[in-house]
Amino acid sequence: MRIINTLESLASALQELSHPVGLVPTMGALHQGHLELVRRAKSENESVIVSIFVNPTQFSPKEDFSTYPRNLSSDTQILSQEMVDLVFTPSPQEIYPPGFDTWVEVKQLSDRLEGRHRPGHFKGVSTIIVKLFNLIRPDKAYFGEKDAQQLQIIKKLTVDLDMGIEIVSVPTVRNPEGLALSSRNNHLEPDQLNAAPIIYRALNFGKTMIKNGELDCKTLRTNIESIISESPLTTIEYLSISDLETLEELEVVDRPVLISTAVRIGQVRLIDNVKIIDREL
Amino acid sequence: MRIINTLESLASALQELSHPVGLVPTMGALHQGHLELVRRAKSENESVIVSIFVNPTQFSPKEDFSTYPRNLSSDTQILSQEMVDLVFTPSPQEIYPPGFDTWVEVKQLSDRLEGRHRPGHFKGVSTIIVKLFNLIRPDKAYFGEKDAQQLQIIKKLTVDLDMGIEIVSVPTVRNPEGLALSSRNNHLEPDQLNAAPIIYRALNFGKTMIKNGELDCKTLRTNIESIISESPLTTIEYLSISDLETLEELEVVDRPVLISTAVRIGQVRLIDNVKIIDREL
Repeated sequence: MRIINTLESLASALQELSHPVGLVPTMGALHQGHLELVRRAKSENESVIVSIFVNPTQFSPKEDFSTYPRNLSSDTQILSQEMVDLVFTPSPQEIYPPGFDTWVEVKQLSDRLEGRHRPGHFKGVSTIIVKLFNLIRPDKAYFGEKDAQQLQIIKKLTVDLDMGIEIVSVPTVRNPEGLALSSRNNHLEPDQLNAAPIIYRALNFGKTMIKNGELDCKTLRTNIESIISESPLTTIEYLSISDLETLEELEVVDRPVLISTAVRIGQVRLIDNVKIIDREL
Repeated sequence: MRIINTLESLASALQELSHPVGLVPTMGALHQGHLELVRRAKSENESVIVSIFVNPTQFSPKEDFSTYPRNLSSDTQILSQEMVDLVFTPSPQEIYPPGFDTWVEVKQLSDRLEGRHRPGHFKGVSTIIVKLFNLIRPDKAYFGEKDAQQLQIIKKLTVDLDMGIEIVSVPTVRNPEGLALSSRNNHLEPDQLNAAPIIYRALNFGKTMIKNGELDCKTLRTNIESIISESPLTTIEYLSISDLETLEELEVVDRPVLISTAVRIGQVRLIDNVKIIDREL
């Protein structure tokens, strides 16, 4: 497995890889959720590249860029065991040299949900993804469903900008208690870790309510929020029931929906979601 | 020469072309300036593609999108004589299907000069160029120096987004009186066409003043503007003396500069520029 950290060495290393090439973009601190992406990529491609880059432009100055978990040596060891062909782990200076000033933005999708609470976040995400796609030119790229809005935005920009790359989504991986795996879980204290699974339980309760015929979003939101709030450690940032594709907030469940939430537990901000595509079981 | 107007047929036609591939993006109504780009591309590539697309997103609602000169049958005849391999002339619907919502923007460079007078113009230009580059994946792309700011912006986004395409600039072609060739010249009445060369004469006068040692930009601007204003038919929109690369407005000529202007003659808006790289002759 080659570990590459400059654009120049990347260009020559890419020429030695057989196509199709699968790319798994990550911010490192790899967990089982990332490994699911890697294994799916391995099963569908001749070569697999994993990028590890904590992208500064998707963090606001108030956010956790400096404290975001980093664990490069453990990450590369894991990826080597997974038989990944190439790990691309550039420095911020390599990706954003002085004077960098070009930005990609998916307008409407970026203003909702996470975008309302993290202004500029998806502009940073969209820009780094276009750069990685252009640098690596993969045939397919793999993203987790935990970041549902990110997934929709990347699908949209790939089509809108004619990137010619297939976006593959992979279901969220959870711990035995149901908590969605996230690098940020590393920052949870034991009591916070015990409290966190209530998020998924609440989302699932909403899903059950919908399947049982409750279609009023206000009622659904109130019920789901009240479950999350049962723990004294949780603070809800938003709880949304939206169109699965456009992420427009809904009043009535009259189409496939995404129930998504951002919850703070102490200093840690966690997101999760469930989707309901078909109300008939 | 193949004429292609859908993305689907483009993809298959591209596979038959030998590399390197040169792209000349145009809005049609081809003149000798475009042909210089085509010939330069022919001399440097195995295959040449010319795109003809009057890009709606770079025109504001008040601008001349609907009246912009269009002359497809004459254009394709000319390009066929030039032995161009492929003409890509998609419909607006093909390029911007319903729901299109992803935009590329080079921030600071886009706010100056033309950008101040045409808000959103360069966002439209940047977005169509990224789309064309992704659809066609040329090795080189050719642009005229008449659109100096556009050229700088395209160079910048190509580097910033790691597009891996070489941008080649070609000097402005002028009529015998010095008027920069432009598709919009088609809209000039005979008396307006007679008046228009004063723009280039004035810019050249500025260049001569600088070579003669006048380095104060306010003095230079006043002198250049007074020449353009000698004609009763001209209205100056801006007259700028800026850093050749960053396009920052200057007070003193202490580096390579661009003297650029936008002038209205009747309903027609003309732009032109000269650059001064070295004051010593």
